[in-house]
Amino acid sequence: MYVDQASAQELKAQLVDLESQYSDILAAKLNLDLTRGKPSGSQLDLSNGLDGILAGSYKAEGGDDCRNYGGLDGLAEAKALFSQVLGVKPSETLIGGNASLTLMFQSVVFTHLFGARGPGSAWSAEGEIKFLCPVPGYDRHFGICEELGIKMIPVAMDENGPVMDEVEALVKSDPCIKGIWCVPRFSNPSGIVYSDEVVDRIAQLGRIAGANFRVMWDNAYAIHALHDDAPVLANLMDVARQHGTEDSVLIFGSTSKVTFAGAGLAFMGASEENLKHFKKHLGMCTIGPDKVNQLRHVKFFGDYSGLMAHMNKHAELLRPRFDAVLEHLDAGFAESDLGCWTVPEGGYFVSFDARPGLAREIVRLAAEAGVKLTPAGATYPYGKDPEDKNIRLAPSFPSLADINKTMEVFVLCVKLASVRQKLNS
Amino acid sequence: MYVDQASAQELKAQLVDLESQYSDILAAKLNLDLTRGKPSGSQLDLSNGLDGILAGSYKAEGGDDCRNYGGLDGLAEAKALFSQVLGVKPSETLIGGNASLTLMFQSVVFTHLFGARGPGSAWSAEGEIKFLCPVPGYDRHFGICEELGIKMIPVAMDENGPVMDEVEALVKSDPCIKGIWCVPRFSNPSGIVYSDEVVDRIAQLGRIAGANFRVMWDNAYAIHALHDDAPVLANLMDVARQHGTEDSVLIFGSTSKVTFAGAGLAFMGASEENLKHFKKHLGMCTIGPDKVNQLRHVKFFGDYSGLMAHMNKHAELLRPRFDAVLEHLDAGFAESDLGCWTVPEGGYFVSFDARPGLAREIVRLAAEAGVKLTPAGATYPYGKDPEDKNIRLAPSFPSLADINKTMEVFVLCVKLASVRQKLNS
Repeated sequence: MYVDQASAQELKAQLVDLESQYSDILAAKLNLDLTRGKPSGSQLDLSNGLDGILAGSYKAEGGDDCRNYGGLDGLAEAKALFSQVLGVKPSETLIGGNASLTLMFQSVVFTHLFGARGPGSAWSAEGEIKFLCPVPGYDRHFGICEELGIKMIPVAMDENGPVMDEVEALVKSDPCIKGIWCVPRFSNPSGIVYSDEVVDRIAQLGRIAGANFRVMWDNAYAIHALHDDAPVLANLMDVARQHGTEDSVLIFGSTSKVTFAGAGLAFMGASEENLKHFKKHLGMCTIGPDKVNQLRHVKFFGDYSGLMAHMNKHAELLRPRFDAVLEHLDAGFAESDLGCWTVPEGGYFVSFDARPGLAREIVRLAAEAGVKLTPAGATYPYGKDPEDKNIRLAPSFPSLADINKTMEVFVLCVKLASVRQKLNS
Repeated sequence: MYVDQASAQELKAQLVDLESQYSDILAAKLNLDLTRGKPSGSQLDLSNGLDGILAGSYKAEGGDDCRNYGGLDGLAEAKALFSQVLGVKPSETLIGGNASLTLMFQSVVFTHLFGARGPGSAWSAEGEIKFLCPVPGYDRHFGICEELGIKMIPVAMDENGPVMDEVEALVKSDPCIKGIWCVPRFSNPSGIVYSDEVVDRIAQLGRIAGANFRVMWDNAYAIHALHDDAPVLANLMDVARQHGTEDSVLIFGSTSKVTFAGAGLAFMGASEENLKHFKKHLGMCTIGPDKVNQLRHVKFFGDYSGLMAHMNKHAELLRPRFDAVLEHLDAGFAESDLGCWTVPEGGYFVSFDARPGLAREIVRLAAEAGVKLTPAGATYPYGKDPEDKNIRLAPSFPSLADINKTMEVFVLCVKLASVRQKLNS
C-alpha cells in the first residue's frame, strides 16, 4: 500500500476495511506486551544450573571466602573471564553487582560531583554540562543525564553508528560537552554495529574534547549475536591505547541477558588510573559486590568458550522470534510507503520508523487493542522524538504465538494510522 | 596497676618488665587481626543452606519470575519478613541489594542533590549542610558525609545513647543541621542500647529541625543480641508516628551479619511518602535488586521465628569470643587506671578507652607486634579522636586461640604505652 499514490476513494475504502479489522481486534480483548528487552522464560532456564552450583564450596582462587566482606572490585577469576567480553585487561576490569546501569550511574555521578581526578576536575565545577546522545537510543541512559541536570544533545545515527562529522563538530565547538552515550554493537534500538572507522574516530574524541571527556561505551549486547557471521565490533580500548586516549573511555557490560536478567553480574572496563579513582568513591557507597554470585557465574561458564556456547543457545531461542517480527513487517510493508525498519543481527530490538507524526498514535491504537508497545519517544532524550516516528519492538519475551498476534495488531495499527493521517492531510 | 599512684622507681621497674615481654612478642612474629566486624567462618557456615535452596523454583508468591527484570523495591515476601526487623509496615519497607551502606549513601545523596520532596527541598540548595555524629561511631557513616562535603559535628554519648540535651540544643540553634547518624541497638562500637527516653526525644527532632531533617537509624544489630535478656530497643517508627514525624526517620538493616556478610540482603524502612520519592531516584540507577537472592533468604528462614532461631546460633558462636576479650580486659585492667571499656550485650564490638593521648601509640605498638587493630581515630568524624583514647575491638572473626593471643598483646601494649607516657610526663 502506497498511501501517497492512492486516491481519496481508495483510501476511504481502505479505511473502512482497516477499521472493521480493528473493531474485531478490540472485541478480542487482547493482553500482550512487546515493550521491554526481557529474556523469555526459556532463556532464563538455560542458567538454572547457577543455583546450587557451589555445592558448599565458597573459596575463591586466591583463597578468599566469597561469603564474607572484602574486595571492592570483584573476584580475580570473574575479572579474567569477563574482561574478555569488555575487551580490556583483567587489571582494567571491575566486577560489580547485578546492574551495569548502577556502574554507569556511579561513573557519571562520581565524575560530575567529585571529578575523575579529584575535586578540581569535577564537571559540576564547570557550569553547564552536556552529553551527546546518538538517536534513537536507550531511555535509561537519558534518564541518568536528566536526573543530574546534564543537557542532552541528540545526534543522528546512520548504518555505521553516530554521524561522526556531526559529533566531532559539536565536540570542537562546545567545551561543555563531556560525554557521549554509545551502545556500539547491536545498538538499542536500531541493531546497528558501529563501523571500524566510527570506533576509531570515537576513540579520538578524548583528544579533541580534553581530559574530562568520557565515552560511555555500553556494550550491553557484546556477545549477543543472532548469527555466527554477525558483524564484529572493533575493540575500543585497543584503539584508544593506540591514540593514547585510554582514560577517555568507560566500557560497560553485564550478564543480564546472559544468565538471569535481575540476578546477574555487571562489569566495567577502564584504564587502571580511572579504576583507581572510581574505586575510591565506590568504597564510600558499598561494602563490595556479591562475590558468591560472581563465583557461581565463573563456575557455571568455566571459560570464555563455555560462555560462547551458552550464548549460542540464546541465539537459537531468539532467532525465530526476530524472524517472526521481520516476516510480519515484510509482509505488511515491503511494498509500501508506511515505514522502514532495521534487520538486526543481534541484540534485543527491531527499530521501526513510521511515517512522521504517527508513532504516538500507533502506540495508542495498539494499547487500546490490548498490545503494549514501548512508549513513543522513549528512544529520544527527554522522551521527545522530533519527528514522532520511531517505535522500538522487543520480541525476546513473548511466545511465538503472542509475537504473531502482536505483530498482526501492530501492522494493522500502522496501516490504520497512516490512512487516517493521509485522509486528514 | 595504678600508674598515677606509682613512684618513678616502680614505673621504671614495670617498664623493664613490660619491654622484655614486648621483645618476646616481637620475636614471635605474630600475624593477627582484630580490626573488622566480620563474621567468622563458623558463623557463615550457618547459612550454607542458602545456595541451592531454590531447587529450580524461581517463582515469587505473586507469581513473578525472580530471575527476570522487574520490581524496584523487592519481593513482597521479603518485605513481610524483614519489615519485622525494621519495626515498620511491609508497605514501608524496601529490600535492596547486598549492602545497607548503599541504601544509606543513596538516601543521603538523593536528599542532598534532588531533595526529599523535589528540587526545592534539596539540601544542596540550602548552602552548608551539617550532620550530628554521636561518638564514638561508625567510620563508614562519617565517610558518606565527608564524601559529600557534609560537615560533621560530634556529639557525646552516655550509657543511654546520644546526650539529647546537647543534640536538641544544637538542632535548635543551627538550621544547617539536617541529620544525625545513629546505631541505636548495640551501637558501633560502644554496644550501648538507646534508652526509651532517648528514642522518644530522637523521634521529636524532626519537629524541631524542620521538614528536611532525617534521622539515619542504622539498626545494623537489631537482632544481634548475645543474651536472651539483652536490652530491647523502642520502636522508632511507632514513636515517630505518635509524634507525627514519620517522615523524619529512615531505618536501615541488613543480613550482612545474619547470613553472608558480602552476599546478604539490605533493607530500608521509611514512610510511604519517603519511599515513593526514594524509588523515583533509585529507578534511575538500578534495574532493581537481586530477587533470586531475596527468594533464597525467605525460603531459608521461613518466618521471623526461624530468623530468631538462626540468630541464637550466632550468639552461641559469638559469646565465648566476647567473653574472652572481656576476661583479658578484666584481668589486665580491673584494678588499674589504664582504661575503661564497655560490656556489650550484643553487636560486634567492645569499645576501649585508654588514657588520653595513647590510642594511636597502642595501635602502633600492636601493629609492630603483628596484631592489627582498627586504626585509632576511626570511630570519630574525620578520623580525629580529640582525646586520642578510643580503640574498637572486634572479636567476631578470629578463633578463640587467636583472640587470646591478640588480647595478651593488646593488654601488654596498653600497659607499656601507659607506663612510658607517665614516665615522660
